Amino acid sequence: MIRLHDNLSSGNGYKVRLLLAQLGVAYERIEYDIDRGETRTPEFLRGINANGRVPVLETEGGEFLPESNAIIFFLAEGTSYLPDDPMGRARVLSWLFFEQYSHEPNVATPRFWATHGIEMTEERRISLRQKRELGRAALGVMEGHLAENDFFVGGRYTIADVALYAYTHVAPEGGFDLEPYPFVRAWIRRVASQPGYVP
Amino acid sequence: MIRLHDNLSSGNGYKVRLLLAQLGVAYERIEYDIDRGETRTPEFLRGINANGRVPVLETEGGEFLPESNAIIFFLAEGTSYLPDDPMGRARVLSWLFFEQYSHEPNVATPRFWATHGIEMTEERRISLRQKRELGRAALGVMEGHLAENDFFVGGRYTIADVALYAYTHVAPEGGFDLEPYPFVRAWIRRVASQPGYVP
Repeated sequence: MIRLHDNLSSGNGYKVRLLLAQLGVAYERIEYDIDRGETRTPEFLRGINANGRVPVLETEGGEFLPESNAIIFFLAEGTSYLPDDPMGRARVLSWLFFEQYSHEPNVATPRFWATHGIEMTEERRISLRQKRELGRAALGVMEGHLAENDFFVGGRYTIADVALYAYTHVAPEGGFDLEPYPFVRAWIRRVASQPGYVP
Repeated sequence: MIRLHDNLSSGNGYKVRLLLAQLGVAYERIEYDIDRGETRTPEFLRGINANGRVPVLETEGGEFLPESNAIIFFLAEGTSYLPDDPMGRARVLSWLFFEQYSHEPNVATPRFWATHGIEMTEERRISLRQKRELGRAALGVMEGHLAENDFFVGGRYTIADVALYAYTHVAPEGGFDLEPYPFVRAWIRRVASQPGYVP
């Protein structure tokens, strides 16, 4: 059975859990307490992910694959959650990289600070102002795309939606108001009504 | 002929230029002055990339594909620069996401500030300290992997190397000393000796 090295509060972990549920794939989940540094131990860094992060997928063959968006791409191969034409796949990847570069660092980190009781030092307060601005810009890019499309790629639900949904639907926990983004809110409802959806 | 919407100082643009040279694909290059905001005009945002960034690949069919790592994945499909087994491809993607999340924001941004004459405000000075620390951590992850592997995936040169090479080989321009990373330095020389390499 495959294993997911995971943390329940992680939106990156949730992407994988959501897709595995929709694919109907059974798996064993191993929880790490990231507040206690359990993904930064010498054993974890040596054996599971040298970059000290979860989620990491462990295959039945004992191979370890880090990076949430690489994991969901791997799991979605050959299924309806990933287009089979090269440009469709490239468009999915384009949104996955947008998510990791322009969206997640700005939308997810303020939520992490708020929900993990991280002390808001002067450094973090300055950083938070930048993240608010860049996070709203990322939500604006999504809003523009969703004004003309029901889903991110090819008119149907794919892992591009899975990836972007993970931190967008909980963005208010990090202080982002979704009121100015009606198309994003409608898309959140569409994703939540997909077969096999798990909250 | 395909077109590359680009900026010559961009390492993300360089990834695409390097791969296109190695593939022997002819293309037209369109240069944007990012210091003058040429990728943030209403025309650019509406017609080329709503996220206001280059590089963007324009296909012969007039489709626009943003995100450097999505572009090189798309161009490398079916070539020796991308493995054809699912786990090999997933490993390449894992490094591409590592590059965009853990490496580029920390290793590339200080270089951008230094080479584009960006004013070092107190905000940026604080941010620079964090980026130095995280950038060294990313270089450390690469060093550990390259201590045991000649290239990032499957023992041969792939787009994982292309992506990570882009900002690593010019990291000293952003104040990163590569002296403590001998395996990274040896890999930089290996990449530069690949057929079709362009500086």
